[in-house]
Amino acid sequence: MRYCYGIDIGGTTIKMGWFNEGGELLEKWEVESRIENNGSLILPDITESIKDHMKQNTLAVKDIVGIGVGVPGPVNNEGVVLTTANLGWGRKDVVKEFQELLPVPVKVGNDANMAALGEMSAGGGVGHKNIILITLGTGVGGGIIIDGHAVVGHHGSAGEIGHMTVNKAETKVCGCGRKGCLEQYASATGIKRLAKRRLEQDTKDSLLRQETDLNAKVVFDSLKKGDSVAKEIVEEFATYLGEAIANIVIVTDPSMVVLGGGVSKAGDILIEYVKKHFEEVAFYANKGTHFGLATLGNDAGIYGCAELILGKEPTIK
Amino acid sequence: MRYCYGIDIGGTTIKMGWFNEGGELLEKWEVESRIENNGSLILPDITESIKDHMKQNTLAVKDIVGIGVGVPGPVNNEGVVLTTANLGWGRKDVVKEFQELLPVPVKVGNDANMAALGEMSAGGGVGHKNIILITLGTGVGGGIIIDGHAVVGHHGSAGEIGHMTVNKAETKVCGCGRKGCLEQYASATGIKRLAKRRLEQDTKDSLLRQETDLNAKVVFDSLKKGDSVAKEIVEEFATYLGEAIANIVIVTDPSMVVLGGGVSKAGDILIEYVKKHFEEVAFYANKGTHFGLATLGNDAGIYGCAELILGKEPTIK
Repeated sequence: MRYCYGIDIGGTTIKMGWFNEGGELLEKWEVESRIENNGSLILPDITESIKDHMKQNTLAVKDIVGIGVGVPGPVNNEGVVLTTANLGWGRKDVVKEFQELLPVPVKVGNDANMAALGEMSAGGGVGHKNIILITLGTGVGGGIIIDGHAVVGHHGSAGEIGHMTVNKAETKVCGCGRKGCLEQYASATGIKRLAKRRLEQDTKDSLLRQETDLNAKVVFDSLKKGDSVAKEIVEEFATYLGEAIANIVIVTDPSMVVLGGGVSKAGDILIEYVKKHFEEVAFYANKGTHFGLATLGNDAGIYGCAELILGKEPTIK
Repeated sequence: MRYCYGIDIGGTTIKMGWFNEGGELLEKWEVESRIENNGSLILPDITESIKDHMKQNTLAVKDIVGIGVGVPGPVNNEGVVLTTANLGWGRKDVVKEFQELLPVPVKVGNDANMAALGEMSAGGGVGHKNIILITLGTGVGGGIIIDGHAVVGHHGSAGEIGHMTVNKAETKVCGCGRKGCLEQYASATGIKRLAKRRLEQDTKDSLLRQETDLNAKVVFDSLKKGDSVAKEIVEEFATYLGEAIANIVIVTDPSMVVLGGGVSKAGDILIEYVKKHFEEVAFYANKGTHFGLATLGNDAGIYGCAELILGKEPTIK
C-alpha cells in the first residue's frame, strides 16, 4: 500500500491529512501557520511535519504517491502561486521549493478548488464528476469541477462566482470595489444585511426583532420556527442565489451544485429554498440539476488535495 | 504522413475537410444532408464520400489518425448524440454506427463546441488554450474551451450562454420560453429588435429610418457613418453583451473571448464596443481578457473536428 498527504494551508493553521491510495483519511492533524518573514517558514514547517510522520510510520519516499497542497490564493496550471492574501507570499513556485525540501511528487491548487474537489471525491458530491461547489461563508466562493478536475483558469481565478453581478441597481459597494455582486446577498454577511434592511423597512412582528446578534443562523432558525419576516429574508436571498446559479450552470452544465460554508449549516431548508428559485428560472437543459449540502466541513481541503494526487487523468474530449 | 478528416454535419449540407497531422486543411468539399428516413442516410453518405476520397488519394485505414464529427445537438462524453433539432436523429451512438461503416477512430462533438475548438486551434483564438467562443447569429451560441478541450457538460449543453438571463424586466418571450435571455439582445435578431424599438421610441433623424430591411448589418454600417441613433443601439447591445461576458468569464476565467457569427462581420468596431462595456464591469482578475474576432467562418467546424482528433491530451489538474 502507498500513501499520500493532503495539506491545506490557511492563514492561521495548516491542516494535514494522511490518506491511503484508496483516498481514505487515516490520520489528520494541524500545525500553526507561521506567517512571519513573508511566510518563509511555512513550507519547511510542513515538510518537517511530514518527515516526522513518515519516520513514525516507517514510510520511505517510495511509499508516497505524492503530496497535494492547497493555498489561499490563485495558482496557475504549473503550480505557481501568484499571490496570497494572508500568508505573506508573493509569486512562489511552491512545487519547486517543496521538492527541494522533500523529493516527492507535489501538486498545488487553490484552496477553494481543492474544497470542491474534496466534496466531489468524498463529500456531498460523491458520484458526480461535474459539480460546482458554492461556499456561502463570510464571502461567497466557488470551485468548478469538470470531468473530475478543478478548473484553474487563465489567471487562476476560475470559480470566483461571489463576484458575479446580480443586481445592477445596488448602491452599496462590495469588498471588490464593484456593486451588486452575488456575495452582497448570498454570503452570511449578505444575509445579515438583507435582514437588517427588511426589519428597518417594515414594522411586522418578528422573532428577529429580539435578536441582539442578527446573523444568518438566527434568520434560518427563525424561519424554521415559522417566522414570516425570516421567510421573506430567505426568499430574497434564495432568489438572488437561485437566479445566479441558473446563470452559472448555463456555462459549464454540471450534474450537481453543492452548497457549503457556514450558511449551509442551515441544512435541507437552504437547499429547498435555493432549488425552488433555481428551477423557476433555469434553462430547460439544466432543470433537474442536483443540489446538495457539503459534508466535509473544514476537512474538504485535505480531501481535495489528496484527490489532486490520486484522481484519475481527465477524459475531457 | 498520416491524415484526419473533419466532418461538420448541418441540416442542409455536410462540410468535409481533409487535414494532415499538422492540422493543415488540404482539401474541403460538401455533400448534401439527406434528412429523409430519420436521417439514416447521413452516416452512410459521409463514409462513402470518405472512402471515395481515400481511394482517390490511395490512402489506407492505417493512414487515418481518426475522424472528428460535429453534430447540431447535445453530445455526451461517450460520443452519443442525445437529440438533434434538424437531422431527424433521436438518441444515436454515432461512434459505433460510424465505425461499423468505416473502422477508424471516431470522436463526436457538438457543432458549437467544434467551432470553438477550431477557432482556438486555427482561427481567432490561436495561441490561447482557454477561450470562450460566442457566436452572434440568428441566435447566440457558445463554446467553452478549457486547457485546449471543449467542455461538454453533464447534459451536453455547456456553453448555452445565449440563454443566460440578462434582463429580469423583459416582457417578450425568448425562443426557449423564458424571458430576458442574452439572445434577445445580442443576436442579429436581437439587434434588429433593439433598433426597431429605439426608432419607434424617439424621433431623432437617422440613416436607419430610410432602411426598408432593418438588420444588424445596417445598424453597424450606419454606426460607421457616424449615425447617432445607430450608436445608441450598438451601445445598448454592447452593454448587455459586455455585462454578460463579465459574468461568464467569472466562471471559467479564460484568456480570450472570440466573437463569431454573422454579427461579427461588423469587424473591429464590434470588439471595441463590447470590450469597453466588459471592462467597465469586469471583476479585477478578468480585466484585460483578450477579445478577438472569429476568422474561420463556416470552416470553423471542420477545423474543430480535426483538432478533436489531433489535439493533445488535456492537462487540467
